[in-house]
Order: sequence, then C-alpha cells, then structure tokens
Amino acid sequence: MQTIKEYIESNQERFLEELFALLRFPSISADPAYKKDVEKTADFIAEKLKEAGADKVEVCPTAGNPIVYGEKIISNDLPTVLVYGHYDVQPADPLELWDTPPFEPTVRDGKIYARGAADDKGQFYMHVKAFEYMMRNDALACNIKFMIEGEEEVGSANLGTFVKANTERLQNDVIVISDTSMISMEQPSLETGLRGLSYVEVEVTGPNRDLHSGVYGGAVANPATILAKLIASLHDENNHIAIPGFYDDVIELSDEEKDALNKAPFDIEEYKDDLGIADVWGEKGYSSIERTGTRPTLEVNGIWGGYIGEGAKTVLPSKAFAKISMRLVPNQNSERITNLFKEHFEKIAPSCVTVKVKPHHGGEPVVTPTDSVAYKAAEKALEDAFNKKPIPTRGGGSIPIVALFEKELGVKTVLLGFGLDSDNLHSPNEKYGIENYLKGIETIPAFFRYFAELSK
Amino acid sequence: MQTIKEYIESNQERFLEELFALLRFPSISADPAYKKDVEKTADFIAEKLKEAGADKVEVCPTAGNPIVYGEKIISNDLPTVLVYGHYDVQPADPLELWDTPPFEPTVRDGKIYARGAADDKGQFYMHVKAFEYMMRNDALACNIKFMIEGEEEVGSANLGTFVKANTERLQNDVIVISDTSMISMEQPSLETGLRGLSYVEVEVTGPNRDLHSGVYGGAVANPATILAKLIASLHDENNHIAIPGFYDDVIELSDEEKDALNKAPFDIEEYKDDLGIADVWGEKGYSSIERTGTRPTLEVNGIWGGYIGEGAKTVLPSKAFAKISMRLVPNQNSERITNLFKEHFEKIAPSCVTVKVKPHHGGEPVVTPTDSVAYKAAEKALEDAFNKKPIPTRGGGSIPIVALFEKELGVKTVLLGFGLDSDNLHSPNEKYGIENYLKGIETIPAFFRYFAELSK
Repeated sequence: MQTIKEYIESNQERFLEELFALLRFPSISADPAYKKDVEKTADFIAEKLKEAGADKVEVCPTAGNPIVYGEKIISNDLPTVLVYGHYDVQPADPLELWDTPPFEPTVRDGKIYARGAADDKGQFYMHVKAFEYMMRNDALACNIKFMIEGEEEVGSANLGTFVKANTERLQNDVIVISDTSMISMEQPSLETGLRGLSYVEVEVTGPNRDLHSGVYGGAVANPATILAKLIASLHDENNHIAIPGFYDDVIELSDEEKDALNKAPFDIEEYKDDLGIADVWGEKGYSSIERTGTRPTLEVNGIWGGYIGEGAKTVLPSKAFAKISMRLVPNQNSERITNLFKEHFEKIAPSCVTVKVKPHHGGEPVVTPTDSVAYKAAEKALEDAFNKKPIPTRGGGSIPIVALFEKELGVKTVLLGFGLDSDNLHSPNEKYGIENYLKGIETIPAFFRYFAELSK
Repeated sequence: MQTIKEYIESNQERFLEELFALLRFPSISADPAYKKDVEKTADFIAEKLKEAGADKVEVCPTAGNPIVYGEKIISNDLPTVLVYGHYDVQPADPLELWDTPPFEPTVRDGKIYARGAADDKGQFYMHVKAFEYMMRNDALACNIKFMIEGEEEVGSANLGTFVKANTERLQNDVIVISDTSMISMEQPSLETGLRGLSYVEVEVTGPNRDLHSGVYGGAVANPATILAKLIASLHDENNHIAIPGFYDDVIELSDEEKDALNKAPFDIEEYKDDLGIADVWGEKGYSSIERTGTRPTLEVNGIWGGYIGEGAKTVLPSKAFAKISMRLVPNQNSERITNLFKEHFEKIAPSCVTVKVKPHHGGEPVVTPTDSVAYKAAEKALEDAFNKKPIPTRGGGSIPIVALFEKELGVKTVLLGFGLDSDNLHSPNEKYGIENYLKGIETIPAFFRYFAELSK
C-alpha cells in the first residue's frame, strides 16, 4: 500500500511518457483530414483505461468521432463518479508561431508544450492515472465511470445523442470535469460557472465575381467593406452588444456577488503586461473579471475576403466571410441568441449585398452549486493538496455539453480544473505545468474519498 | 503587298497560336515564386520582336522584373511612336472559380479565356503583330519603339528609374498604350483619363498571441473587430470618404462635362444583371459613370485575421490585416493621399491596439487631350475599323506610370484600348475576344498612317 504521493514519486516518468504519447496524436476535430488520428487517439485511451483496471471499456462509434467509455463498479452502496473529458484538440495554426512542433511535446521550465497539453488531454488523463493508483492500492472509494469524447472543440454534436441513448449506463451521483483553470498554484480555485456558446459563420456576397477595383470600384458595393460595417455595428460605443433582445435574459449579479467575484486576486498591470497591450477593452460599467466571468460577449474568431496573398491585387471581391461566436451567461439560451443574431444580421444588411448566416454550434451556460456535497469534497481535496482553501470563480469558457448532462442525467457537475489562464489554450505554444499535472493526480483520490464520506 | 485585312486573313491561326504561347507563361509579378516564369516571358517577347523585324532588341534587367525594349527607326523625318505595354499579370486566385485553367488559354464563344488575355498580353501583342505586318508589307509609316515591362500590376516600381536613365533612347512623339476598354464592338471609344492609385496594407495588433475567446473575450480588444470599426469609419453615411483632406484637390466636373460623360450608353439594369446585384452602391450625388470615371474611391482589396479554416475555432486573434487601395482623380497626389490615410488611420486607432500602415505603391492620375494629333489619328483609325466614330470616356482604371512618362518624356499618351469592361480583368475567367484582338491588329497600322499624315 503506497500513498498517492509515493506512487507519483515512483511512477512520475511513466505518467509523463504516457501523456506525451497521447499528445503526439494530432486529434484535431475541426478538420476532417485528421479523422484517422482521432480514431487512433480513442483506441489509445481505451487501451490505457483497460491497463488501469477499467471494465466494459468500449470505443463507442457515433455519427462523428468515437466516445471512449469505461467503468469500475465496486458496490451499489457506494456513490458513482462520472469523469467526463475530451481527447480532441483545437487546430494548431498559425504553425509558424509555435516555438516547438505542436504535436511533439517538449518540456521547458517545467511546462509541457503541446496542443492539447492542458485542453484537455493533460487534464482528463490525470483521472486515468489517479484511477490506476486507486485500483492498485485498493483505494477506490467510489464507483467510477469514464466518458471521454472527441468532438468537444466542435460543439459535441453527437455526444447528446449518446447520452440520451445511455442514461442507464451513465447513471451517477456527480460529474467531474477537469477542463478549466484555477487562479494559480499558490491560490487554488474552483469554477462555479461556465458560459454558453453560440457560434455562427456569416457570408456577405456582393457582385457575382471578383471585379477590377478600378473599373467597378466606387459604383458597386464591396462585400468586405459592408461586412466591416455590419461587424462594427454589433457593438455600440460602450461596447454593449447592439443586437435587439440580446441581453433580455441576462440576470445582473447582486452587489454581493460582484464583490465576492472581484475579491479574486487580479492585477490589471500584470494582465496587460502578459498580453502586451496598453489598454484593456470591454463593456462599459464592468470590471475585467466581470466581463469574462459574468457578461455575454461577441467575438470575431476569423474574418477573410478578397486577395490575402503576397503583394498587391486591385480586386473588388465577390464575397467576404467571418466566424463569429457569442459567449452566453446563465439564463440565456443558445438557440434563441443564434436566431436573434441571424434575424438582426440579415435585417441590417443593405440591399446592395446578400448575406447568409450559418449556425455552427452552441451550448447552454451552467452554474454549479457551492453548497453541494461534491463541491465540498472538491474543496477539501484541493485544500489538502495545496494547503490553501480554494476560492470560487466564474470562468469565461464554455463546455457546451454540461447543461445537457445535468438535464439528461439529473446531476450536478464539479469543475475540478488544474490549468492556468496563461496555458495558451487555443493558441500557439499551449502548455501545461508538470506540477499541475502531478498535483491533479494527487488531488483526485482525495476527492473520491471525501465524496464517499460526505455522501454517507 | 497585302492589305492588313488580307494579312490577318492569312495569318490568323499563327497570330492566335503565338498569343496562346505567351498566355501560357504564369508571369505573376505579385508573387516572387513566379520570378523564373516572368523572365521566360520577357525572353519570349524579345524573340518575337526580333522575328517581326525590330532592331536593338534587348531584355533590360532592372532591380525587379526585366523590361523588353526594341525599335525600328526608318527615318529621322518621320514621327516616332512609343508602344508601352506589360507582360506581367495579376494573381489567378481564387483558382476554384476558373472554368478552365488560367494559364491554359481556351476558346469559348469566340473569347480567349486566360489570365492576362486582355490585361495586357492580348493587347500589347496586337502591336507586335501589326508591326510585323507593316515591316513585311513596307507599310511602316512612323518610327516605332517598344517598351514592354513586367511590373505594371505591382506599381511599376523600377520602370521610373529605367525611363529616367533612357530618356534619349525613349524619345518619341506619342506614347500608345492598349491596356484599357472600349464601350462595345458596336460603339468604339477612347479613354481620355486614368485614375491615380494609392495602395496600402494595414496591420492591427491586439494581444501578443492568439487567445482563448472564452477566457479573454470581452475583456481584451479583438483586432478583427477593431479593424472592422476602423474600415467602417472610412466611408460616411453618404459613402463619402471620411479621411480629412481627402477631397481637397479634387476638381468638380462642370455640368457640361458631366452631361457629355453621362451621354455614353449605360443601362443600369443590364449593369446590375451582369453583376448579379440588386442595387448599385456609391457616393451620394453622383451617377455610376461619374463614380467610376471622375471620383476618387477607397476599396478593401483583401481582409484577413484569426481562424479562416474549416469548422469552428474559438480564438481571439492577435492580429488582423487589410489591403486597401484608393483610386485618385486628376490633381490629387498619390503620395499626399497615402500620407493622409496613414495619419488618419493611426490617429483613429484606439489605445487598446497598435496599427501599422505600409504603403504598397501608387501612381498619379492623368488626363489625355482630345484635340491632339495623336487623338485625332486614333479617332480616324477606329472609325475606319468600326465604321463608327469613337466617343471619349473616362475609365476608372489606373496605369500608374503614364504620368511619369509624360513628365520625363514630355509627350502625351493615347489610350488605344480594345478590351471590354466585361473581360473579367483581375477576376477569374479573364477573357479577350478573338474579334477584339484581330480588330486591334487591323486598327493599329491605320493609326500609324494617320499619325504620320497629320504630323506633317
């Protein structure tokens, strides 16, 4: 019988090597070209779950990428923890901005650099290794179920169907997800909310072909110019989103909630230095923490049109495009917001162009309770590992499927994340601290133990 | 002794084959990757000039792409015509919109489809073949000089130096350029003005790296959103350009000039149908013909930033870019306008981003006289070929170097263009009518004859 600390001590090398192997798969879900790599990743995870001691391990096919399932049921008298994670990753481009190849994990200053290191391979794999420890040291205090999917970065299109079709098999008492950040290694925190998401792609069409900008310029609407005007109009001069009805369902935080939130350590100068900006930006009347944690946002994720190659081309383009996503806060509804955007965008487009709005994917916002047994168990486990009580925070990110879990499986979620905001998620040089990885593995068994105790 | 019509009759096939060979070179000047093809094109033209009977043929190196020179001086008592053209072409993308490959000339419905067919390979090569006829049939009525360059589509960066260094060698009585359009095969026309050009590339930088749009969105300025706001602000609600001082040097046309201009046949419904648009667009208070022919314009030629690949990526980009060009009218100055743009764009950028404005290239506007010997000679030559008197028009395009020719060589220019606005210049499926090509070859010897006569 080893303690988790002893076990990590003696298996650290292997834990890292296995994660590196997992990180070498370019499991990019946004681009169909990586389908084969995605499938290999799923098989790899299934293999590792079996080695760790899971039963009924299965790579479940879906209309999209497969879902890896595995479980260990030791007693019907014990509570059951469902671990959710995702093995798919964001695209790696722009590649030229990576200091080392995105799919060749490299360690610098104690950090693992690779696409997916923190989001989410490094984080869900902590649970596989913690489970391995609990199995080999007779320390598994709850039943456990794993559901690791491959489409989180593209909206979990097929996970909903899978969950609805497997409610029995997925029955549990709490869903644990390690796919979020904490404040720092000195100040652990637990996220208590996730923003929802509404993601659309817009296409603005002017003339039926690219035109010579000298022969036609000035007399025919330029779709790139019109797209710029449309996007510019989506935020007013106070950076409020100018889509009618957009804020209708938003619940304003109470002053108490705001105060609690703004107590989290945040140094605006450090923040600006880290990002290399002279000024922050955002909705008038809200602090930076409130802007990301509690307010809905609208961001242009990509824009393109006309000639974007080397040198100069005097063309009046036929089309211009943008990818636009909106983050939603509790009580907003993804489908309603998508429709509001579509109606508004089509309405404000001038008659000299035609516009198309294509919804990509969405997800509902969630709030996790801070008075639940699961939250308290997570709190105590983190306090043991970090010798400091974690504080509740509101993250700005989204895990679109969580709201559906809660609806379909009737349980709440605990966001037991060990990443840091500075991990460059979705950016070049994504990283995850080796210390974060090992601390996570150390914390998880304690969570299981406390959750079993407090559930009695 | 054959007439030009007989000569065309018996050499038509070869005239087309030679043009096709010329069109097969992907001589794209905007992209350094095509440097070798550009040089091969220059050698090909030099060869053809020699075959046609030119002396002192030379491929003159420059800091950029070479200039092909050739001449035939028959007598100092005869006037000298300098033929200017360019063998470089615009990039061909978006390739997927071409019905047949851009560098594999294909004939459909009597049109030659290929990049450069009309702009300008098909048009300058008419002069080479007309020259060949005049040489072989003892019909050369003027001395002739050819100057065919390879950087017109990127601003003729090195032609100015060449002209200044060769003023003696380039001495002439008129410069003839076939690189513009006429109204139709039923209604020939002569362009009497060219717009100037100011071309810039702008870069907007927000955070020092791409960010997760959930973690940072709403709290950090998105450079794509800011770029959209900046571009949107460059035209006011009447589509006037909102750069202070932009219109200072613009001379308003007299009502007489406007009336003359608006007499040119123009059917707004046909125009809209051809372009597939429901409405035209442009500066309030001006007709479509005035907007392209007599007013300065500002067009977005390209815009890009963030994730533009397949699917969805929730990123807040670090940078966004745009290529923007302005067409200038007589009395505006390219350098002054570029500086006004730069100052204005940098001034209106908010402190949450940094902007860079990089000038690409420019050129000055010109007006060609309608009372000159050369214009009258062109008028008579066109009337002979088309059995209809050509009418003067104001084209919207630019040939940046023309103003410099007039300054350095002290002569005026005749814009003897045989293209049509519908030739898809700078667009996919660029084309040039076989009839236009042959009519051009037929017209040119008559121009030489009339120019010699009227110059006596």
